[in-house]
Amino acid sequence: MKMSIKELAKLANVSVTTVSLVLNDKPSRISETKKKEIKELAKLHDYQPNFSARNLVTKTSKTIGLLMPDIENLFFSALAKNVEDELRQNGYSLLLVNSDDMYKNDISLIKNLVNRGVDGLLLTIANDAIKHKAQYETLLEDIKTPYVMVDRTLGNPKHPQVYFDNQLGGYLATKYLIDQGHQKIACLISKDKSLNGYYRYKGYQKALKMAHIDLNEQWVFDGDYRFQSGYHMADRLVSQQCDALFAGNDLMAYGAIKRLKELGKKVPEDIEVVGYDNLEFSKMLGLNLPSVEQNVKALGKQSVALLMDLMKNQAINRTIVLEPTFKKD
Amino acid sequence: MKMSIKELAKLANVSVTTVSLVLNDKPSRISETKKKEIKELAKLHDYQPNFSARNLVTKTSKTIGLLMPDIENLFFSALAKNVEDELRQNGYSLLLVNSDDMYKNDISLIKNLVNRGVDGLLLTIANDAIKHKAQYETLLEDIKTPYVMVDRTLGNPKHPQVYFDNQLGGYLATKYLIDQGHQKIACLISKDKSLNGYYRYKGYQKALKMAHIDLNEQWVFDGDYRFQSGYHMADRLVSQQCDALFAGNDLMAYGAIKRLKELGKKVPEDIEVVGYDNLEFSKMLGLNLPSVEQNVKALGKQSVALLMDLMKNQAINRTIVLEPTFKKD
Repeated sequence: MKMSIKELAKLANVSVTTVSLVLNDKPSRISETKKKEIKELAKLHDYQPNFSARNLVTKTSKTIGLLMPDIENLFFSALAKNVEDELRQNGYSLLLVNSDDMYKNDISLIKNLVNRGVDGLLLTIANDAIKHKAQYETLLEDIKTPYVMVDRTLGNPKHPQVYFDNQLGGYLATKYLIDQGHQKIACLISKDKSLNGYYRYKGYQKALKMAHIDLNEQWVFDGDYRFQSGYHMADRLVSQQCDALFAGNDLMAYGAIKRLKELGKKVPEDIEVVGYDNLEFSKMLGLNLPSVEQNVKALGKQSVALLMDLMKNQAINRTIVLEPTFKKD
Repeated sequence: MKMSIKELAKLANVSVTTVSLVLNDKPSRISETKKKEIKELAKLHDYQPNFSARNLVTKTSKTIGLLMPDIENLFFSALAKNVEDELRQNGYSLLLVNSDDMYKNDISLIKNLVNRGVDGLLLTIANDAIKHKAQYETLLEDIKTPYVMVDRTLGNPKHPQVYFDNQLGGYLATKYLIDQGHQKIACLISKDKSLNGYYRYKGYQKALKMAHIDLNEQWVFDGDYRFQSGYHMADRLVSQQCDALFAGNDLMAYGAIKRLKELGKKVPEDIEVVGYDNLEFSKMLGLNLPSVEQNVKALGKQSVALLMDLMKNQAINRTIVLEPTFKKD
């Protein structure tokens, strides 16, 4: 049987408020002897505080809300796992919500998390946030709960944020293809619907410019980060006679490679492909796909650390940019 | 600025308790006119209830705890996503914890979720629970929070549970290999450390028996469901001259296939391999791996439905067994 705080107070011959103050180590005028007695009684009877009651006293919930666009996506499931690990080590639990990568869900889910009284928010917003910046800005201005934008930002330095240098990633991938001797390098990316995609594209642009290769707009394809999107663009890659492809993620690279093989093309001999994410599945299934790697563990660690600092009003550096690395094999 | 319940009560000239009762639609003697006035004031001032305070009044948290062994595992990330979807549709939020598949973490995480006052629990316990059944039984007997065991059980019908028929899955996979004409069929499974593995092994055993093929214990290999585990056993598969393998999951099948190819063996011509999980990566990366598929969406849906029924004391059928299907391609 669970003992209530009332029963414990009666046993100790004190008020409920006194028990609450003592067990939550709040300052009070209660004598050390009485404090010790109450704590021992609580231990003896295996008293478990009612969380809601404690929250009202301590004004904290020891819970952090994590907003994810798609928990099934390998990058985000790894991120969620790392965040949960880090939070637990800091004594916090994770309230996880999934937006299905839709801005409308973001807005209502963030409000919902705030109303639930989470102590802090880790926000990976939907890709289509790029088209609804004003709504996010208004919402974030309004909430009092500390938050950190994780991986995806609004491109506004005033928000606390931890993200990867996507321009560097796009640059590294394209530079590799140039160094391999390719000139007709296509790019499969979502540059208008995703800020991270836009910067990966800027990196592609920069690498071409530095190598004095003209950018051909016909070789820039719009992709939605799914396998099918790579599969369907591969025909045009062949008809445009491109000799290389920088795909904005590994899934689209897989799709392109599958279709290229069906079309009788050899990868990388006829057309070389690089991806983004460096998924372990490539190697498991015998594909050597050069790819840009983002250290998701560092992303989780730094995001939680920044949030903890913000919650203590101790954040010094509010923007943390992590560097991706290029993995040839 | 957020309005507090105190300020709202002052405005309406009533007590805090009255406001709480009215906004939570609890029975009271308050007149309909006053109720309407309080609700309108709350709306006018965009009053957002303090969640902890509301929880104390309603005795619910509108939160469900989900215990996962490994959120990075594709099966569980898909499960978490489906569970979150289902819960949201039912007006609940998800508190997610990850045990790293270790029973010690399970025990403390379940206690922690209960102390946080979740309204219900969805528990996918660690594989090594099989060795610590008594601890789980004691814990589950003790807690008052409704719970459902999801995918992994203690093999005790008294617990509310939703899981797949693993014996059927093992049977279907092995039967397929027998029908293909194979006689020397190996099995890579964790039969002693996981209850689901044990039943998949029982299915393998049953299929062999029904086909009057003797089971050779030397062809039963111990696997831990990771890629490396399949990779490392493949040499013995060859030295034992087996002509087929039933792998307990796709990751181990990937490992075995990779090594078999390195050893100069053709799959499926020399050695045929079947997996379990039917991961979409196989097809994306050009591998045709026959595999047992478990409908994770149905698992999430049924688990949440059973928990909701238990929370309303309306559960009729407390054990739900789902059937896996075999996918040839």
